[in-house]
Amino acid sequence: MRHKPKAVVLDVIETCFAIDPLDEKLSELGLPAGSLKVWFPRVLRDAFALQVTGTYKGFAEIATGALASLLAENKIEPNAEKMEGVIESFAALPIHPDVKEGIQLLRAAGIRIAALTNGSATTTRKMFAGAGLEDAIEKFISIEEVKQWKPAAAVYLHAAKQLDLAPADLALVAAHDWDIDGAVKAGLTTAYIARRQPRGSSAMSPPDVTAHTLPEAARALLALPG
Amino acid sequence: MRHKPKAVVLDVIETCFAIDPLDEKLSELGLPAGSLKVWFPRVLRDAFALQVTGTYKGFAEIATGALASLLAENKIEPNAEKMEGVIESFAALPIHPDVKEGIQLLRAAGIRIAALTNGSATTTRKMFAGAGLEDAIEKFISIEEVKQWKPAAAVYLHAAKQLDLAPADLALVAAHDWDIDGAVKAGLTTAYIARRQPRGSSAMSPPDVTAHTLPEAARALLALPG
Repeated sequence: MRHKPKAVVLDVIETCFAIDPLDEKLSELGLPAGSLKVWFPRVLRDAFALQVTGTYKGFAEIATGALASLLAENKIEPNAEKMEGVIESFAALPIHPDVKEGIQLLRAAGIRIAALTNGSATTTRKMFAGAGLEDAIEKFISIEEVKQWKPAAAVYLHAAKQLDLAPADLALVAAHDWDIDGAVKAGLTTAYIARRQPRGSSAMSPPDVTAHTLPEAARALLALPG
Repeated sequence: MRHKPKAVVLDVIETCFAIDPLDEKLSELGLPAGSLKVWFPRVLRDAFALQVTGTYKGFAEIATGALASLLAENKIEPNAEKMEGVIESFAALPIHPDVKEGIQLLRAAGIRIAALTNGSATTTRKMFAGAGLEDAIEKFISIEEVKQWKPAAAVYLHAAKQLDLAPADLALVAAHDWDIDGAVKAGLTTAYIARRQPRGSSAMSPPDVTAHTLPEAARALLALPG
């Protein structure tokens, strides 16, 4: 039986920050509209494939490699500077409008909050700072510290250790079913935010809580037995 | 230094059989045109994510889960029968027109040929039988036998074992950079066929041979020093 967590780790991209503006950035490279929906799953596919073979590479390297490959597929000559611009624009993604209230709800209830990202800690800090929420986040935890990608158990266990908590006292909030699946298997409590995807894949472990916004997820986590 | 392989394992989907007709199958479910490019990387992303957490699920289960999720995202009620129809239509994908000649070239040079698929062995046999090439394939090797997905090393090593060969005497031919990467790391010789993707991601190990068709890949593999 899951209990109320002592801390929450928030996934960052898509969960807290809307990724949609990146589609325009890709269009500026000459890619057809909607290319974000093609590129982003490929970035994750490649990252997870490398995790399967035991090779760690960071977000920027994998994302750039997949982007160059997609550009070539569309007969567009890769341009290093423009590709770098796309990666850098992650730092300027807009926060989902409900995130601030969700963070306030958790903090008011005495729940500690950290970010847990497959991206870089530096970019993540910039993103929350840009949204005026830097001070609400106790730690910006990145996979860079363990050189493994979520959904590897090592990442969630590292987050729990960084917060000095047992995995069962920590909850992951994420908008990705594969992230929820990994956290469930690592022993965390989980809350799924159905942003773009109303439901996760049935091949993945179900979350403890399903919500549409961070406040809704926060309320459900706070309602778990102490 | 790589040497001429004693046997070749052919990746199946996209490498030997064109996947494009599936886009129409997805449109018949009500999904927008181009959805194949969104769905298929997600299927692989999910499979690799599950591989990362040490959970084996077969192709049909993962593909169906990702499809139901994509349908929900498009506000289309999932229909079990229609989704099954999509999965079944993999068995009827058309063979790339160059595959037969490539297989003949390899066979004429005394090279043994097997198929190595992340799909099911039964479906793969049906696909090659439909193309009149069943007898040219010595073994239909599926990840089902090791309950791990490519690019896990165990799969390529299993294939080498099934063919009673050292990994260095076996070559993988594939149209996916992550498949090449896994095979390189497992010690196989590799040939990349640039079908949809002119170049693989720079985050992945480069192949020994790059070609546009199977005959071209075959000739390059046969030209390696004995």
